[in-house]
Amino acid sequence: MHDEPEVAVLRLGHRPGRDERMTTHVGLTARALGADRVWIPDNAGQSLETVRDITDRFGGPFTAELTDSPKGIIRDWEGRVVHLTMYGERVQDVEAEVKRAHGDDDEPILIVVGAEKVSFDVYEEADWNVGVTNQPHSEVAGLAVFLDRLFEGRELEREWDDADQRVIPMETGKRVEPADEE
Amino acid sequence: MHDEPEVAVLRLGHRPGRDERMTTHVGLTARALGADRVWIPDNAGQSLETVRDITDRFGGPFTAELTDSPKGIIRDWEGRVVHLTMYGERVQDVEAEVKRAHGDDDEPILIVVGAEKVSFDVYEEADWNVGVTNQPHSEVAGLAVFLDRLFEGRELEREWDDADQRVIPMETGKRVEPADEE
Repeated sequence: MHDEPEVAVLRLGHRPGRDERMTTHVGLTARALGADRVWIPDNAGQSLETVRDITDRFGGPFTAELTDSPKGIIRDWEGRVVHLTMYGERVQDVEAEVKRAHGDDDEPILIVVGAEKVSFDVYEEADWNVGVTNQPHSEVAGLAVFLDRLFEGRELEREWDDADQRVIPMETGKRVEPADEE
Repeated sequence: MHDEPEVAVLRLGHRPGRDERMTTHVGLTARALGADRVWIPDNAGQSLETVRDITDRFGGPFTAELTDSPKGIIRDWEGRVVHLTMYGERVQDVEAEVKRAHGDDDEPILIVVGAEKVSFDVYEEADWNVGVTNQPHSEVAGLAVFLDRLFEGRELEREWDDADQRVIPMETGKRVEPADEE
């Protein structure tokens, strides 16, 4: 987010057909909950289009790109790497350390979110393997809770630039307005 | 969770084919992040099986059931109803009120998570329409953040009964052990 070291999300692996919506939701969740960028595998072009379309309509800044070398992105990342996995250390035990690296030491953070089986070198390359619970559930859910904890809710207050439209929060009903820039 | 008023999740709507994994992930996220129960539409039998299979292997208590009358469940719910929607009030503005109802007034909470378009009567029936951001992203992500905030992280400390296996948190690697009851 604005004025903070970059937080990027890397979707690792994508099974066409099966993973379309999960990969799209990883990208949209990254955007909505404060990450600056997402990389999506290059066989998930439709997910990329959806994330870019939402960014065009609802604002940014947010960067969505394809990659043909996800492991290259991990290797070349200049900052710290968090790999979300149900086998990792408990998020409540390591989040303070990750926040210190991001907030105090100004380290960019790359969050790796696997699809199916993740190869062992990713576990070794990561600075932290983190479990948002050690239960099987959803990579989208794990990413969401991790981002909300990393940013401590600041992501809910962010403003969006260059939006065409914005939703006005309401007790009952739906209200969408054109987002006129002042 | 144990010793607290019930928290249940209702998946509203399911488009076979398109929504299989989203509905499954709603159920698994409900279980992993502290809800006591999920209702799934009766055209999503495969999602039900997956959630029950995970509960058998990794423990409970957690109840997963099909319903042919989701709106009946909302109508008959004896407690408060939260409908998660990007059009709703901001979670950071209403979560204290929901927590008070659950924690101080011992009210069971039903969390409604829509698939596609949700009809207007659900907005009216709900005690709170809540947006985990007013941005389009993922119902799984919204549910996850909402549960983590409702339980204030207590859900991460819960223990699981009657599990066959459990994951031991690790810095690097995977460790799964048989869950021998003492």
